[in-house]
Amino acid sequence: MTDGVRASRPGGRTARVRADVLAAVEAELAEHGYDGLTIDAVAARSGVHRTTLYRRWKDVSGLLVDLLAAGADDAWEPADTGSLETDLMAVNREVHAALTARPSITQAVIAASFRTAEAAEALTRFWADRYERTALVVRRAVDRGEVAADVDAHRLLLTATAPLYHQLVLLRQPMTRDEADQHARIAAASVR
Amino acid sequence: MTDGVRASRPGGRTARVRADVLAAVEAELAEHGYDGLTIDAVAARSGVHRTTLYRRWKDVSGLLVDLLAAGADDAWEPADTGSLETDLMAVNREVHAALTARPSITQAVIAASFRTAEAAEALTRFWADRYERTALVVRRAVDRGEVAADVDAHRLLLTATAPLYHQLVLLRQPMTRDEADQHARIAAASVR
Repeated sequence: MTDGVRASRPGGRTARVRADVLAAVEAELAEHGYDGLTIDAVAARSGVHRTTLYRRWKDVSGLLVDLLAAGADDAWEPADTGSLETDLMAVNREVHAALTARPSITQAVIAASFRTAEAAEALTRFWADRYERTALVVRRAVDRGEVAADVDAHRLLLTATAPLYHQLVLLRQPMTRDEADQHARIAAASVR
Repeated sequence: MTDGVRASRPGGRTARVRADVLAAVEAELAEHGYDGLTIDAVAARSGVHRTTLYRRWKDVSGLLVDLLAAGADDAWEPADTGSLETDLMAVNREVHAALTARPSITQAVIAASFRTAEAAEALTRFWADRYERTALVVRRAVDRGEVAADVDAHRLLLTATAPLYHQLVLLRQPMTRDEADQHARIAAASVR
């Protein structure tokens, strides 16, 4: 599909401007963090005029909120690997990769969530959506007869993923991928 | 012990000024958060002159760093309740109480750690010290023959406590004390 075709669809140009702007926000956030994120830098990187940015997103916090909303829109779902333990390992490997990337967009967005209430609310909504989608690994395990139908999906997902966030974001200490796998195993074993 | 006696000991007055200042920092932080913490407000509340505050702590971030250092100095150790599971439940109840207090000093300090590098380093040191002390619950369990001597104490403590921090700090969702107990049980079972 060429840009010309995309631009000719209803909403095509608006959607493309949004995609360009959000890609620039992501790149700026990764390079400079929330404190270094400015409308001018996003305008320069995206090639979208700053007056358009001010009109549509109002300020830096509006850009961040939209970046998270766009992330929630996407078609992400957890990998289907055939067992609860390996599904949870796949989830934990994604979380581990996102938190240890240098630079890490996820770490930048978390930091931003302690700066503005809008960013905090947007991140809360984003994660609520992600944990809801991730609960699919639990429903698949129930369907396979691996775990009881009344298992608490959110508790199980917290047991698997929370140690990664706590260690890498709040305690600010390293964690290996093997250790992340280990927490997936502990979570899977907790409901067997 | 009277104030007069305390003041007559070497370092007594200095220690008392520090205690008054840090109590004021804690109260201001709890009421107004890191953004509302000012040298002037701490001076007014503690009765210590602002020039003394500037000379000894330099700025707001210096006050926060010293508050955490003072917390690490104290004689805290985990309750000895007779079993690994109940010891971990006691730890989780302390964490739960600290994170759900309104206002919560712990939540305010975590937020501050995303503002300044000094606060982040001070919090990292504080938690390293706390997790090291908390590892006593694991050594006691080893001594009782409840768990193997080579159990990974930090992994075990992460399994117990991380879900509380993730849910209450990053996901910004409620968690009941029963749910906190449940995560202590999962952690204890993971090493049986």
